[in-house]
Amino acid sequence: MIGPLGESESFTPEPGTTLEHELVRLRRRLITEASYAIHMLESSLVALWEADADRAADVRAREDRVDEEEVAIEQECLRLMTLQQPFAHDFRLLTFCLKVNLDVERVADHASSIAKIARSLDRSVQTPWPTALRDMGDRVPAMCHDLLRAVLREDAEQAREVIGADKVIDQLDKRLFDEVKAWIAREPEAIDRGLLAYRVGRELERVGDLMANIAEDVVYLVTGTIVRHAKKRPGSVPRSAESV
Amino acid sequence: MIGPLGESESFTPEPGTTLEHELVRLRRRLITEASYAIHMLESSLVALWEADADRAADVRAREDRVDEEEVAIEQECLRLMTLQQPFAHDFRLLTFCLKVNLDVERVADHASSIAKIARSLDRSVQTPWPTALRDMGDRVPAMCHDLLRAVLREDAEQAREVIGADKVIDQLDKRLFDEVKAWIAREPEAIDRGLLAYRVGRELERVGDLMANIAEDVVYLVTGTIVRHAKKRPGSVPRSAESV
Repeated sequence: MIGPLGESESFTPEPGTTLEHELVRLRRRLITEASYAIHMLESSLVALWEADADRAADVRAREDRVDEEEVAIEQECLRLMTLQQPFAHDFRLLTFCLKVNLDVERVADHASSIAKIARSLDRSVQTPWPTALRDMGDRVPAMCHDLLRAVLREDAEQAREVIGADKVIDQLDKRLFDEVKAWIAREPEAIDRGLLAYRVGRELERVGDLMANIAEDVVYLVTGTIVRHAKKRPGSVPRSAESV
Repeated sequence: MIGPLGESESFTPEPGTTLEHELVRLRRRLITEASYAIHMLESSLVALWEADADRAADVRAREDRVDEEEVAIEQECLRLMTLQQPFAHDFRLLTFCLKVNLDVERVADHASSIAKIARSLDRSVQTPWPTALRDMGDRVPAMCHDLLRAVLREDAEQAREVIGADKVIDQLDKRLFDEVKAWIAREPEAIDRGLLAYRVGRELERVGDLMANIAEDVVYLVTGTIVRHAKKRPGSVPRSAESV
């Protein structure tokens, strides 16, 4: 049976035995990777605002590194699972790393999609990006940093804030729809850029979802309470891992 | 070290010991869940084409079941990991199940997003959905079924076809952009529906990506060759798990 971590129990393994030492290293490696992907996302947005094709090309070139690291981290998780008999909480941490690893690679994918759009823009034309999109472009990378801090500090409260921040992103995505509609109605020659702006909004909204997913897993790791999907069912009672 | 499955070794565990029996059950449970999510996706598309709000509401109501099952399947994977010392190939299968489980829940999420759009449509207005979107709406669920067959038959060849089919979806997504642009230019009053059509295209394109991801994992499970991300680097040589 998999119980939650007790109050005195941290999900950072104390370096001691080889496995614990390797888990600490794995966690550090994953955080480095996540920082790299977040930096790609920020850079793709700067490339978009400035229609900077060189910067955009640079983001796309960096995607390969994340792809390779994703495969390597997954192999490392598998190696640690089979290396020796880990404890239940080691498996929870390894499963957490596997999931975060997948989601980090997807953040890099979204950054790369935004960079692809940035690269296609004509630099000589100034684009009046919708306010809602600019706002999403500030908030989503900030959510990513907040989540990373929540992982580092094992801070369930901060993780819950990230889950809450995702609701604001969803509202901005709705506002973006209206802004894009008004923009195209006002300037029919802006159809291209309007559609692209809407598409960037979708990419950012999806990154927000990924962050909220990871944040839910952080809450689970720290408190043993499953909050996943609870936001969709406001009336539902969060389940404790103890009942599983 | 985690080697690939040998030629004579199947990734379906033979029922024998308790763990093997439980792994077969887990795999069946996951496939049932995936079929349910694919059915939701098909139903959301019918709701869209027919602007059928009732059917759309039904899809959204079914999302809760997938959400709950996702949590239960993940807990089951963790329970099996900690229950007894599984072999290396059991861990590979369990990791596969964890990843597919996440992706199945996301397919249900995308179906639900499409249903949300379907529910917002005015039934009295006939919508001339772009040809590329209709085509994606036929092909993406077909890819899902093909992938399920590849999983059931442990068929790497079929899995590779799914990876190939995803490239067609990406091309259709590009064609959809042009069709939507032309549509809005022709009928400015169709801005709303044009943006929604483009959005549905993005949802379907993302499901195609998820299927391609799982297909890559099927190839790895059956042949021990990592093909993940290889499609992005046409010049790169697929790595064998033996070298990891």
